Amino acid sequence: MEKLKERMDAFSDAVIAIIITIMVLELPIPKHDLFSEYMQFGKAVGIFFISFCFVANIWYQHSMLFNDAKTMNDHIFIREFIFLAFLSLMPIFTKIITYDTNRTTVLAYGILNIIVNGLFVRLSYAVIKQKYTDQQDIKRIFHKVYGNHNNFLGYASITILVLAYFFPKAMVVVYLAMPVISFVTTRHD
Amino acid sequence: MEKLKERMDAFSDAVIAIIITIMVLELPIPKHDLFSEYMQFGKAVGIFFISFCFVANIWYQHSMLFNDAKTMNDHIFIREFIFLAFLSLMPIFTKIITYDTNRTTVLAYGILNIIVNGLFVRLSYAVIKQKYTDQQDIKRIFHKVYGNHNNFLGYASITILVLAYFFPKAMVVVYLAMPVISFVTTRHD
Amino acid sequence: MEKLKERMDAFSDAVIAIIITIMVLELPIPKHDLFSEYMQFGKAVGIFFISFCFVANIWYQHSMLFNDAKTMNDHIFIREFIFLAFLSLMPIFTKIITYDTNRTTVLAYGILNIIVNGLFVRLSYAVIKQKYTDQQDIKRIFHKVYGNHNNFLGYASITILVLAYFFPKAMVVVYLAMPVISFVTTRHD
Amino acid sequence: MEKLKERMDAFSDAVIAIIITIMVLELPIPKHDLFSEYMQFGKAVGIFFISFCFVANIWYQHSMLFNDAKTMNDHIFIREFIFLAFLSLMPIFTKIITYDTNRTTVLAYGILNIIVNGLFVRLSYAVIKQKYTDQQDIKRIFHKVYGNHNNFLGYASITILVLAYFFPKAMVVVYLAMPVISFVTTRHD
Repeated sequence: MEKLKERMDAFSDAVIAIIITIMVLELPIPKHDLFSEYMQFGKAVGIFFISFCFVANIWYQHSMLFNDAKTMNDHIFIREFIFLAFLSLMPIFTKIITYDTNRTTVLAYGILNIIVNGLFVRLSYAVIKQKYTDQQDIKRIFHKVYGNHNNFLGYASITILVLAYFFPKAMVVVYLAMPVISFVTTRHD
Repeated sequence: MEKLKERMDAFSDAVIAIIITIMVLELPIPKHDLFSEYMQFGKAVGIFFISFCFVANIWYQHSMLFNDAKTMNDHIFIREFIFLAFLSLMPIFTKIITYDTNRTTVLAYGILNIIVNGLFVRLSYAVIKQKYTDQQDIKRIFHKVYGNHNNFLGYASITILVLAYFFPKAMVVVYLAMPVISFVTTRHD
Repeated sequence: MEKLKERMDAFSDAVIAIIITIMVLELPIPKHDLFSEYMQFGKAVGIFFISFCFVANIWYQHSMLFNDAKTMNDHIFIREFIFLAFLSLMPIFTKIITYDTNRTTVLAYGILNIIVNGLFVRLSYAVIKQKYTDQQDIKRIFHKVYGNHNNFLGYASITILVLAYFFPKAMVVVYLAMPVISFVTTRHD
Repeated sequence: MEKLKERMDAFSDAVIAIIITIMVLELPIPKHDLFSEYMQFGKAVGIFFISFCFVANIWYQHSMLFNDAKTMNDHIFIREFIFLAFLSLMPIFTKIITYDTNRTTVLAYGILNIIVNGLFVRLSYAVIKQKYTDQQDIKRIFHKVYGNHNNFLGYASITILVLAYFFPKAMVVVYLAMPVISFVTTRHD
């Protein structure tokens, strides 16, 4: 399975590269020389950057995780593709949240956020368990992939979801800011 | 031809990665905060997942097949590209079936389904025949690529096509469910 | 420059893989259950297959050409990217010829056809000249990349272009058939 | 970090390959057999070529830069992705400049131009500083990546930006011509 593992790595990287780049196709361009249209375009660019950070962050963690592994099995293959299927929904959910910011869309975005993170934790666990049996090793690898922020981000996600039900418009800012904070902090440990 | 074979592997993987990812661009987003629009978006996401499973499954079988081969010839090159040409129609046919579910579209989808599977079997045969002459070896490789489900799925495809002529709306569910079942069962043997 | 050469190979392959796959995004889907709409979709699929053959053919020749080379220089880099720039216009010109088949579009398509082939010949020459000095070797490589059909196809292109001025609608069929014939014959020598 | 560095190289190349190719999707095709529509399509193709040159140029410099490096660190990862995020805005800003050429769009394009170049210089510096400590070596690498044109292009960018405020329509031609000139001259040193 070694050759297949390398091929899956390359395939996943290609899928993530496409996800991160096609998001720019969705940006609405200003059609008239009006300040309001430029503002709307600026907002769209901002949201593009946020999605870009989110996916770049996932790609980094994903690479760290699989660099450590030498081989794979069918179990990991299925978890990997379920993870990729949900990850590829991220841009379209970000687009929806831009288009109409209300309770439903913010909750949907928050739930997708938690699902993608959850699927990645499950995938990480399957990959690490395959190689290491010692609990110390497992902890060390998890730390390399996630930094120290994992527990904090997990609790934060659920807290924000509850708050989002009551204050959707305020919480969207927090949601959107999270990948940026995670992108910068995790790397600087 | 060894270097060319590796290059064709990478090229095919890139094409399949693009096929699997551009499908998400076709999803219609909800434009108003209405329950009916969210339902329609949910249905579109469901169909996206099904297409994702189908292509992921094909990618896995395709990788298994070519990992075993060391070289290629012009014959395999032509079969590979005919296979890829039909495979890349899969997303658009899935989109059509979503848009208008009637006898014509369901039959068209069913026929494409059988064509893609048939082309892959022919491709597999060309690849395997190039390397192995012993009948036992050929059987072993076919089993690795397809699992035990090959005959069953072949018969099922034709049965469903006949039924689809009489009950198009019911059969679309069966068609769409097949890649998901195949994705999960083949890997768990 | 060896590492850069490998990187340029991978980059070109990725660009060609994207060109060959995004063409399917342009296909207009049938919106109503009418025979005329299905016919139009069938025609679009046919043109997609033709473009697919053309690009697949180019990819094969391109791979054969660069597999033989060990290194590259700035001259080859510039010719490669000029070639890729024109190649990536192929899908949109094919789309235009489908949309409105008249003298202007058929001539434009024919001229692009000749430009792409001419740029590839110039690129081949630069790559081969870099490695071989003996005229016999140069001839041998040219034969490997192009088969015996090169002269024939060159003369045919110009003849068709002249005829296309007088009979645009008839000549479009010939133009569109050429990549398919080239795809099948070159490989079977 | 060596494996991660190679993976980041492949990922960046894939992102740049997608950026360079999806620009062709944005080209508006002529819908009627009118001279004015063909002219507009010709202008769009011209702008596509210019963006193609710009990105091809960046890809070449980027490859030269990273071929020299053996490893990477978190600092380089963050700078690389910030650079890619802004680079992927290039096609959409080029599209905007085509759509409506006025003072705002030309200034926006000019500023993006300077930002992308600035981010690439910062990235280069981080990559080179990691490996070399001797000032002579750093100068040598910078020269390999940029050629002799770096200072000239830097001063030119700022001069043009000032002029663009007063003569937006004239300066757009200069802006658009710069990547083409840079593409041809840098390589011919």
